[in-house]
Amino acid sequence: MSLPPMQYRFLGRSGLKVSVVSLGGWLTHGGHTGDELALQTMKRAYELGVNFFDSAEGYAAGKAELLLGKAIKQFGWEREDLVISTKLYWGEKPDGTKGVNDVGLSRKHILGGMRKSLARLQLEYVDLVFAHRPDRHTPMEEVVRAFNYLISTGQALYWGTSEWSAEEVADAWGVADRLNLIGPLMEQPEYNMLKRDRFEREYEPLFRKWGTGTTVFSPLRRGILTGKYDNGIPEDSRAAKEGGWFKDEVSGAQGAQTLARVKKLKTVSDKLGCTRAQLALAWTLANPHVSSAIIGATSVTQVDENIAALSVLDKLTPAVLEEIDAILENKPKADTFRYD
Amino acid sequence: MSLPPMQYRFLGRSGLKVSVVSLGGWLTHGGHTGDELALQTMKRAYELGVNFFDSAEGYAAGKAELLLGKAIKQFGWEREDLVISTKLYWGEKPDGTKGVNDVGLSRKHILGGMRKSLARLQLEYVDLVFAHRPDRHTPMEEVVRAFNYLISTGQALYWGTSEWSAEEVADAWGVADRLNLIGPLMEQPEYNMLKRDRFEREYEPLFRKWGTGTTVFSPLRRGILTGKYDNGIPEDSRAAKEGGWFKDEVSGAQGAQTLARVKKLKTVSDKLGCTRAQLALAWTLANPHVSSAIIGATSVTQVDENIAALSVLDKLTPAVLEEIDAILENKPKADTFRYD
Amino acid sequence: MSLPPMQYRFLGRSGLKVSVVSLGGWLTHGGHTGDELALQTMKRAYELGVNFFDSAEGYAAGKAELLLGKAIKQFGWEREDLVISTKLYWGEKPDGTKGVNDVGLSRKHILGGMRKSLARLQLEYVDLVFAHRPDRHTPMEEVVRAFNYLISTGQALYWGTSEWSAEEVADAWGVADRLNLIGPLMEQPEYNMLKRDRFEREYEPLFRKWGTGTTVFSPLRRGILTGKYDNGIPEDSRAAKEGGWFKDEVSGAQGAQTLARVKKLKTVSDKLGCTRAQLALAWTLANPHVSSAIIGATSVTQVDENIAALSVLDKLTPAVLEEIDAILENKPKADTFRYD
Amino acid sequence: MSLPPMQYRFLGRSGLKVSVVSLGGWLTHGGHTGDELALQTMKRAYELGVNFFDSAEGYAAGKAELLLGKAIKQFGWEREDLVISTKLYWGEKPDGTKGVNDVGLSRKHILGGMRKSLARLQLEYVDLVFAHRPDRHTPMEEVVRAFNYLISTGQALYWGTSEWSAEEVADAWGVADRLNLIGPLMEQPEYNMLKRDRFEREYEPLFRKWGTGTTVFSPLRRGILTGKYDNGIPEDSRAAKEGGWFKDEVSGAQGAQTLARVKKLKTVSDKLGCTRAQLALAWTLANPHVSSAIIGATSVTQVDENIAALSVLDKLTPAVLEEIDAILENKPKADTFRYD
Repeated sequence: MSLPPMQYRFLGRSGLKVSVVSLGGWLTHGGHTGDELALQTMKRAYELGVNFFDSAEGYAAGKAELLLGKAIKQFGWEREDLVISTKLYWGEKPDGTKGVNDVGLSRKHILGGMRKSLARLQLEYVDLVFAHRPDRHTPMEEVVRAFNYLISTGQALYWGTSEWSAEEVADAWGVADRLNLIGPLMEQPEYNMLKRDRFEREYEPLFRKWGTGTTVFSPLRRGILTGKYDNGIPEDSRAAKEGGWFKDEVSGAQGAQTLARVKKLKTVSDKLGCTRAQLALAWTLANPHVSSAIIGATSVTQVDENIAALSVLDKLTPAVLEEIDAILENKPKADTFRYD
Repeated sequence: MSLPPMQYRFLGRSGLKVSVVSLGGWLTHGGHTGDELALQTMKRAYELGVNFFDSAEGYAAGKAELLLGKAIKQFGWEREDLVISTKLYWGEKPDGTKGVNDVGLSRKHILGGMRKSLARLQLEYVDLVFAHRPDRHTPMEEVVRAFNYLISTGQALYWGTSEWSAEEVADAWGVADRLNLIGPLMEQPEYNMLKRDRFEREYEPLFRKWGTGTTVFSPLRRGILTGKYDNGIPEDSRAAKEGGWFKDEVSGAQGAQTLARVKKLKTVSDKLGCTRAQLALAWTLANPHVSSAIIGATSVTQVDENIAALSVLDKLTPAVLEEIDAILENKPKADTFRYD
Repeated sequence: MSLPPMQYRFLGRSGLKVSVVSLGGWLTHGGHTGDELALQTMKRAYELGVNFFDSAEGYAAGKAELLLGKAIKQFGWEREDLVISTKLYWGEKPDGTKGVNDVGLSRKHILGGMRKSLARLQLEYVDLVFAHRPDRHTPMEEVVRAFNYLISTGQALYWGTSEWSAEEVADAWGVADRLNLIGPLMEQPEYNMLKRDRFEREYEPLFRKWGTGTTVFSPLRRGILTGKYDNGIPEDSRAAKEGGWFKDEVSGAQGAQTLARVKKLKTVSDKLGCTRAQLALAWTLANPHVSSAIIGATSVTQVDENIAALSVLDKLTPAVLEEIDAILENKPKADTFRYD
Repeated sequence: MSLPPMQYRFLGRSGLKVSVVSLGGWLTHGGHTGDELALQTMKRAYELGVNFFDSAEGYAAGKAELLLGKAIKQFGWEREDLVISTKLYWGEKPDGTKGVNDVGLSRKHILGGMRKSLARLQLEYVDLVFAHRPDRHTPMEEVVRAFNYLISTGQALYWGTSEWSAEEVADAWGVADRLNLIGPLMEQPEYNMLKRDRFEREYEPLFRKWGTGTTVFSPLRRGILTGKYDNGIPEDSRAAKEGGWFKDEVSGAQGAQTLARVKKLKTVSDKLGCTRAQLALAWTLANPHVSSAIIGATSVTQVDENIAALSVLDKLTPAVLEEIDAILENKPKADTFRYD
């Protein structure tokens, strides 16, 4: 199969270009997948034009960063060609314990966590650093100042947020503008066919007012959108093993309805000549506010399958998108702009 | 019946005190109720210690303001003892038509609307002026500057918002702080036992960060919480006549559940020796972030009944509030502050 | 002929709405046209939905403002429904002489000129005040502060520029932002089929960065685009009488080429079933950065003919616009943003 | 005896967590106590959860910092787990002499003093740096700018004050806000049962307005509150040997009254089953504006005894606190906020 060429988008209003498909380290790096397999996955993604590799101090207690750093060294990738991210919030000792100042967005942890992340990555700087969650115990001014410190000391090029509310991002911009500091450029939320409301409704003013870029995760809703649960949860699947919200999502009356919708999407993907995974990924990218969709591919084959979804993108005409909306029945009603 | 003394609270972080029960003009002034009856209602409220009278340019196309202005003149109330509000957004000609610049939060309408409101009220200034809705077509800076103009020219003492999202309030504060201007002091949202989520969850950071005061409307959810729909919708009720969201709310399976909950609240109100209306109003005031609850009383008797609810306030112990939460089953889960 | 309904656009990024066709006072008010005729022209425009009437202290030495003020009084127009502008730069005594401080953008003239303009207009405020030209002898800070004074004292709602270079507008914004003052909202340039470069190329960053609105003048290039010079300059025309740039424009080899192009446009207007004047006006409005096109109609009939052009607007498809560009051969090449 | 677990508090409004009991270097490090004993004391404190170690350039002419640096190295403590402070004001050469620029808060001494402190501590940064006293000869702007320099160059994470008046802290905040710089986060005052006025009355607005955190010293009033002077001053005690304010405090009629009150506190501590030292320490921590109480323990046993006081904290009910106030007779009367 000949794969479509990678596409690149500006990260929000910035001048930085990221590949529309990017590789995340949540699953693949240092976690569920063996190291050698993960390295091959990264290599393949890079060869296919992926330039953005996403990581976090909290992924597998730092092991994701260690492996990403190893890949960069081992494959001799040129630093300028890469967009490397990490996220700070959930620091952890290598043994899994947490000191009282290892968690959150205090200046102490943002500076200390960054130091350790860079050491694990064997890098002098990351391109993107995210506040992995909001921290309502730390004043916004302390948070904004600390991330600006990372930028002004060259340890990071841009800072952003992950799973913050629109109000919190607005607050950060207000503080940054007041202090003549740099505001958060990008948000990393979940966004996929089954989880749309925050991205399409709550975040709408962020795109309009501050040109927020997004690097969205779980475009396949942890695999649900691939159709692999069409016939229930396989016993060896993560859903069955881990329980929690994920199992809930595909169980009961609500879960049955979700799975029925996912099944119905097959009529669309068949028509377009692609898999449902590819349809789901392309659908995410059809939203122009998505700068990059982070895939959690755990094998070279999965990388190829995911990137092949780019050829579906052009086929998502307004008519097809409407057809999908009719199946999903979850399109957020946009807040009206004027009440007249 | 001897009525409890009125109580007063600071309007958010400001030094202004408002009566915890206030009188709204949406229904009573210039609208459904006859003028003479409305004037008597206002008079009674004033005698019982209500100092805050709420109005808007959009209530009955200005007639609510006309009547409020008439009351102030006729009863010879001292201006310093009153807290008078209006809201700008939905301007209207006396004949009900709207010019293209009569709606929204452009500087033109904020200045022009204020001029007309003051004329109708026969006042030199209002204490509070609200942006009656957000206007996403007008830059936040234009809105913040225009309300500050009203304050700096003495036409209003404080400005606030009504039914804005937390993100929009945060944005306004960011702009105000950056420009050394005055931010929005108060929000006027709906808040009652049946509609809690925005107030208790989304607005939580506003109280913490900016000391936002609130003047909440519909504490009785348009009468639903009084129990008057226990046996279905009377044909001559507003619900039956107007249809729309209100009729929907008490119809169907969802409506049946709502009405069942309201019925169940009777066990609580009976125990406390009050009506359900009084319980609902007192419950609203039990939230310390409520500065004032605006009642839509349309008769002297209703004013008395509502203000009697103040004697219920002390009886709302933590145990009673938990009992109510168990009946309502709609307590918002607070966003966690730190994820550790 | 039944006329199409008026359309309204936001003035740049502001919340103010202006009619897309507006009436200018350069020719009609106090100038070449008799007063009664001019008043009837204004009345007709207002009846057809025009809400923006443009004026300047320098039009006929103040007579344009006098006449506009008379119209507002005489016809009893509601102030809130009108968008009234004036422009300051070329002050003049009623006898046509000029004091040393009557010209330019000194704080003295901006304040003094405004006072006189409001007196002539019999108004308390104008909606828009323009700096009629840049003044390179007055520091930008003095200019920005003086126009902000007009806004903060309620004499004007918004300020803008006329025929400033993009660099000068950018400079004004830099000063305004640094001083927490209000920057210029709108520009009033010439824009028509024969004069495109500044609007389409030089001003492009203004639209992008500051949401500059525009009220463009001479959409018919002083009549040339109507076709009335197809057969040369009539001896009694303004062109013949006044000479200067206007006569040059339609004379010589260059003028012949211009007139040939204008003739060719007839093939397009015939196809669309309209006059060339209507095509030219609609073409101007097809540019979304035009907030309003100011017509210089001198009779009721001209007003009607101009406003009828609105029905042409929908017919200006991309293909038609390309056809027009091919005839005009003057489409500015956009500055490239990135060299890749 | 099994010791209670350490507790941690946010340092004022910041996101930094400090142990409520912390170890000071005034006595223990490089001073009265032998080095080996001091190191064991620090080790024990760390093991019991103390994360904040307090120091100053002026403690034993830098020897306290030398010893603290040695401990961090020797015990291999992870830097991220520690909150290390120093204070600048009283610089001194190792031989005890002072250069003309070794004392005060000039930019020269703040930068030079910091350099030497970090060298003695063998650290790249301290978490907290304090202005050890106000310096009324140096402009506040110079002081605020110099401490911000330490933060922006990564030599310190937060800055604060020690024994400044509330007015001076307010002045520093005014300067910092005006210059968009970081204000002083924390104050290090004396606070204990015998010295309450400044903390409880004068500093009250600091907590309310700027969320000032505090690291209080002398919770036992140099041992007086332990009861060891119940029967007068032992001849070998510091009080007898050093004289000065300390001797005065326990001498004469005033001293007799103080000692009588301390004796009376035994009725409370007996009832709670703790020593008077523990009562005094717990009492300090009962004030929520105390972020951390710095103990001057000079032995492992003293560390244990002090930390055991944490189990007394829960027993300090409002009733017990009132009983203590009645004995002390020194509760400051709060400044009234409103005269109504």
